[in-house]
Amino acid sequence: MMMQTPLVLTDMVKRAETYYAHKEIISRTSEKKVHRLTYGQWVKRTRKLAHALTKLGMERGDKIASFAWNQHRHLEAYFAVPCAGAILHMVNIRLSTEHIAYIINHAGDKIILIDEDLVPLIEEVQSELKTIEHYIIMADGELPETTLPNVLSYEALLEEADENFAFPEDLDENAPASMCYTSATTGNPKGVVYTHRSLVLHSMSISMVDTMAISERDTILPIVPMFHVNAWGMPFAAVNVGATQVLIGPQFTPALILDFIEQYNVTKTAGVPTIWLGALQEQEKRARDLSTLQEIFCGGSASPKGLIKKYEEMGVNYIVVYGMTETSPIVSMSRDMSHMNDWSLDEKIETRAMQGLTVPGIESSIVNENGEVPWNGETMGELRLRGPWIAAEYYKDERTAEAFSDGWLYTGDIAVRSKEGFIKITDRTKDLIKSGGEWISSVDLENALMSHEAVFEAAVIAIPHAKWQERPLACVVLKEGANTTKEELTAFLEGQFAKWWLPDDIVFLTEIPKTSVGKFLKAKLRESVNEIYPQLQL
Amino acid sequence: MMMQTPLVLTDMVKRAETYYAHKEIISRTSEKKVHRLTYGQWVKRTRKLAHALTKLGMERGDKIASFAWNQHRHLEAYFAVPCAGAILHMVNIRLSTEHIAYIINHAGDKIILIDEDLVPLIEEVQSELKTIEHYIIMADGELPETTLPNVLSYEALLEEADENFAFPEDLDENAPASMCYTSATTGNPKGVVYTHRSLVLHSMSISMVDTMAISERDTILPIVPMFHVNAWGMPFAAVNVGATQVLIGPQFTPALILDFIEQYNVTKTAGVPTIWLGALQEQEKRARDLSTLQEIFCGGSASPKGLIKKYEEMGVNYIVVYGMTETSPIVSMSRDMSHMNDWSLDEKIETRAMQGLTVPGIESSIVNENGEVPWNGETMGELRLRGPWIAAEYYKDERTAEAFSDGWLYTGDIAVRSKEGFIKITDRTKDLIKSGGEWISSVDLENALMSHEAVFEAAVIAIPHAKWQERPLACVVLKEGANTTKEELTAFLEGQFAKWWLPDDIVFLTEIPKTSVGKFLKAKLRESVNEIYPQLQL
Repeated sequence: MMMQTPLVLTDMVKRAETYYAHKEIISRTSEKKVHRLTYGQWVKRTRKLAHALTKLGMERGDKIASFAWNQHRHLEAYFAVPCAGAILHMVNIRLSTEHIAYIINHAGDKIILIDEDLVPLIEEVQSELKTIEHYIIMADGELPETTLPNVLSYEALLEEADENFAFPEDLDENAPASMCYTSATTGNPKGVVYTHRSLVLHSMSISMVDTMAISERDTILPIVPMFHVNAWGMPFAAVNVGATQVLIGPQFTPALILDFIEQYNVTKTAGVPTIWLGALQEQEKRARDLSTLQEIFCGGSASPKGLIKKYEEMGVNYIVVYGMTETSPIVSMSRDMSHMNDWSLDEKIETRAMQGLTVPGIESSIVNENGEVPWNGETMGELRLRGPWIAAEYYKDERTAEAFSDGWLYTGDIAVRSKEGFIKITDRTKDLIKSGGEWISSVDLENALMSHEAVFEAAVIAIPHAKWQERPLACVVLKEGANTTKEELTAFLEGQFAKWWLPDDIVFLTEIPKTSVGKFLKAKLRESVNEIYPQLQL
Repeated sequence: MMMQTPLVLTDMVKRAETYYAHKEIISRTSEKKVHRLTYGQWVKRTRKLAHALTKLGMERGDKIASFAWNQHRHLEAYFAVPCAGAILHMVNIRLSTEHIAYIINHAGDKIILIDEDLVPLIEEVQSELKTIEHYIIMADGELPETTLPNVLSYEALLEEADENFAFPEDLDENAPASMCYTSATTGNPKGVVYTHRSLVLHSMSISMVDTMAISERDTILPIVPMFHVNAWGMPFAAVNVGATQVLIGPQFTPALILDFIEQYNVTKTAGVPTIWLGALQEQEKRARDLSTLQEIFCGGSASPKGLIKKYEEMGVNYIVVYGMTETSPIVSMSRDMSHMNDWSLDEKIETRAMQGLTVPGIESSIVNENGEVPWNGETMGELRLRGPWIAAEYYKDERTAEAFSDGWLYTGDIAVRSKEGFIKITDRTKDLIKSGGEWISSVDLENALMSHEAVFEAAVIAIPHAKWQERPLACVVLKEGANTTKEELTAFLEGQFAKWWLPDDIVFLTEIPKTSVGKFLKAKLRESVNEIYPQLQL
């Protein structure tokens, strides 16, 4: 019948060195220096890294940690480690030190690759790390002084390694390739292990024209960090199709993002809504030439419709995507379908703001106690997912049973289905407000509030209520210099929602606490509000 | 780790009925009637067909033959048979009756689905068919009178079947799904068996933006027949992404093709060069509005540069694709790469006329006695291919050993590699002219001759030579009303080729014999030339 050639990442590296050796990777490192290297050079360095790690004792199935920004050395590790048969553990640098130590120990990482400016963070936890044998520092020049033991220089290791190092030819497509941990509501982060097969299929998927359409002709700028869910899979897909990559490095600002888009003729970029809100404000202050920019992919939390519209009016296609650590991550997106051609921009944006249609290969289902929800845009249920790039379990974690059953991943996201079949996330299971037996979506209220001209950010949480069990409380951060009142905002929400959905109270804060990836941290918000308004008894 | 959900065609059907139920399939049947049905209706009919065939005794692993044009019932069979766990054998209606009987017997087909107007062809061979138990005729109305035994009406069977018939949920992705036979130089055709996995991966591949980019927003018109290598995989990809499909039915003409493109707003179409040559002539006679047409995919034999240029000037992207029955078929294509942006149209067309870059997932290699050929556009070698949608063998056929070894498919195509890495097919192994130890490409000479304004078609074959072993002979068909001479054509070739490449003789014919798929039939051409010019002693 057909050849049993496996779906493995090594084929992507071979492809890049064969056909795309002339294409470029632009990389800003922790010393804030911009490097330009070709894919040809990058493949040689990637083979060298695999050789160097092998010489240090890396064996098949070993876990190797990375603790780094978006830069070319991190991209080398993305391929060198799995192509040698080991597993790259991308450690989220924004976790608490306690959790950083936990996940490195839990994964059992043998070697860690650290960005120069992040060394102090690892120094803080080093005494607690039980399995790390080598600390490799990625720096352009001299290594910094450090208290870390067994320190090696990334560049020195590469200098002594073989650029023709051959990857094993017998990798199984179901072998583990990389892993990420995702924050849990309570307790330690949970690990997800990706396989060669899942990463290859995800790469093919996001290069399909109806998904992220990543092409050899693109210059991609992932703002989403490479320490967070495979940077949405973009670095893998880019190597597979030979797209130019722009890796923005540490401590980037809205100004730097826009400068990079202008300077390197970026065509596609991706990140969370707060990034694009910030970029918009910066662009309004000082306009850059963004004429090459075709598409922004935005996920992580809901995108305000006003934000989508602003970018659309600038000629940039603003596409909402959806996924999570457990899903590689891209499982759905909000591209226009052909029957929407004649819709007005406002009608399109209604749909665009949703999380969209599941991509080919992924099956979705939204269920509540009555089974699958009807496609009415109203009935809420929990979103569950199935497919070849969806996790089947958490890595050595008893909490697997909480999220995986009957062959489905239960996402913990509450969603409705529009009449087009588009998924619209209305809440997290745990953030849903249950008022008198009915469900109120905190996300819908937040989005409505954020479309008010005076509001910068809004988060809605449940407050306890004697009669209705729970009632919504809105927490609002105003734009700089803007002014409004509780009464004005309530009036603004009236008419958009049923009366019983309206928040019982609106409080004004200077900021909403967020997770490491820019999502509202509602547990922490609850604490802050409690401090300021103890009478609410949260 | 990751879910082990298999890559199976049933998921495509589920996807089509879930998200694309409103999208359309336009189908012209053997009665030349145009049907319009929605994907929703089509899925119901597909489930009914699977049920009807199951009731007739179709079991997992059984082979079911189709003998049909491009129409909706054939598309129903494309999915109903494999999704029920059986294997659809697409019989090429243009084979000789001897070969038709051979392949049906060799596959051991249990049931055959026949287009109404093709019944006479099956009647001719019926007495030789050893395994067929049921003859099902696909007709819009009354069945034709026929000498076939055990005849059933497709539509009557569907009427009594269950539109909710459930496909098995335990299909293995490596289970066989469909099969095609490919003509051999000598002897009987050779069978290739596709799997669910290979068809799903091929569908994902041709929906990638750098390949055929098939999208929900497309209306696709495959001119390439559904009885020939999965119609280049387009029907599968179209169902997967919900593209509108236009199936053109029997005995189509250039005029009908253009009418269909205009009438149904076709965006992408695919077929062999002779189709697009004919369509161009028709368009020059009577211009249709082809403004919706974005891309023509052309393969099967070399495309003359003049033809590519004409379409490009009309605003239609003319993309050369390459593949064969053994490769599902799409393995390479000639899209512009980003560094060609500044090239002139003529420079681009030089590259466009090649078979292009291997698509992601497929590995190619061009080898001669010195190993891998250099990327110089000159050194010829045999093209070999490897990947998850490349066959590993011929079905129950000892000739497997001739084409498959060391994990590669040896294509029998002679190719060079351009400095971009683009594959350019210069000949079939068997058609190569070996003159004094050097290789002369018949295809290069043919393409050059066909770019002469008086030449409609040209084929170059080897004639025996006492000193040089072989020398090229050109066979030319002139355009209607055109006029030229042997001397003029030879002068035209001089300067384009080394002197020793020039044909020893040029003969004028009224037509070049072709295979069922429009390729030059050089063995037959040799016979014709021998009849007309016995002195050549071919």
